Amino acid sequence: MAEIELFIGNKNYSSWSFRPWIALKQKDIPFREILVPFDFDNGNPEFAAFSPSMKVPVLKDGDLTVWDSLAIMEYAAELYPEKELWPADQAERAMARAICSEMHSGFSALRGACPMNMRRPVEELNVDDAVKADVARIVDIWGECLNASNGPFLFGAFSIADAMYAPVVSRFATYGLSEDPVVGRYTEAMTQTKAWKEWEAEALKETWYVAVDEI
Amino acid sequence: MAEIELFIGNKNYSSWSFRPWIALKQKDIPFREILVPFDFDNGNPEFAAFSPSMKVPVLKDGDLTVWDSLAIMEYAAELYPEKELWPADQAERAMARAICSEMHSGFSALRGACPMNMRRPVEELNVDDAVKADVARIVDIWGECLNASNGPFLFGAFSIADAMYAPVVSRFATYGLSEDPVVGRYTEAMTQTKAWKEWEAEALKETWYVAVDEI
Repeated sequence: MAEIELFIGNKNYSSWSFRPWIALKQKDIPFREILVPFDFDNGNPEFAAFSPSMKVPVLKDGDLTVWDSLAIMEYAAELYPEKELWPADQAERAMARAICSEMHSGFSALRGACPMNMRRPVEELNVDDAVKADVARIVDIWGECLNASNGPFLFGAFSIADAMYAPVVSRFATYGLSEDPVVGRYTEAMTQTKAWKEWEAEALKETWYVAVDEI
Repeated sequence: MAEIELFIGNKNYSSWSFRPWIALKQKDIPFREILVPFDFDNGNPEFAAFSPSMKVPVLKDGDLTVWDSLAIMEYAAELYPEKELWPADQAERAMARAICSEMHSGFSALRGACPMNMRRPVEELNVDDAVKADVARIVDIWGECLNASNGPFLFGAFSIADAMYAPVVSRFATYGLSEDPVVGRYTEAMTQTKAWKEWEAEALKETWYVAVDEI
């Protein structure tokens, strides 16, 4: 089987790229990474060469092109069933998909106010009520899952659900959004994974630069 | 097996409810429908009784609660594999999930400017470039899928992908957004399904009312 390819944006900024990347990496699924830096000033017309939606991430597997973080992870779960990218239990898997979908289409206030930026100096940001409501809902989700599974990840072992919320872990820390112990416990588990460490190290050393909080 | 329950909003307005509803109905999957009308003035605090995200749709199956349209349809696909809610071919299934995910998190310009409203008198709406770009992208997706499958649905037989785009078919017609023959062909197929006809008839006769284009 030829190696699958994953097209991603900048590691420091592309939260949607981070999701399938950390899922594949943490599950030891081999892939070739192709990083195409964002051009925030002029857009990325060259994305048309590999991305039907003009967005990243995109996975290529031979002739097949799969775009969108969630669809990529579903495809990886099918390709590697033994890796258990989704929880093995059907009800847990349904729950995992529900919280992934909620992340996928939601939390726009949080995402707008607090873009992922691993190089931003850690400093509490004053946020509005809509962001606070997003944070509270996410803390509820994490608390419910971790209490049911007993951790360290949302459904016990690392799954797509954790990949989906990984950029949120980064945002919560960077912008000082929650002091809830659930967040501390989950952040500890996530940031200790080998995949997180690898991504973060590369994000921090990216030479490509935009001003902090500019995007 | 006890019957599954599907909590939905108003048939005329709740495009996200329409998606799992038409998928289950068109595939003859039995379920009990529980319609909880939106209160556009005061919100819906009573949603808390059944919806962790405070949104519809929600599926309940015994003790299990699954929210979000896409997660609900994934769960139904697992419960009823013989119904082939996803295309049987793996590559087609990956494509189907990609276009579903693109719909799930995207096309916000179209969704904002042209809310589903089956009772709106059909009349062309002047839309801005962002909406036009969304329309063009959707026409591309439909054209590519229908050319590959030869129709009548996006992947030949009716699938979750069609359910995901069903409310867009309604919007395109209501607001006169495209004269592309691909849209005409797909609209014909979609609106002739028994499930579409049943939903639309109920949407049109809903006594609950807000002024046209008010939401």
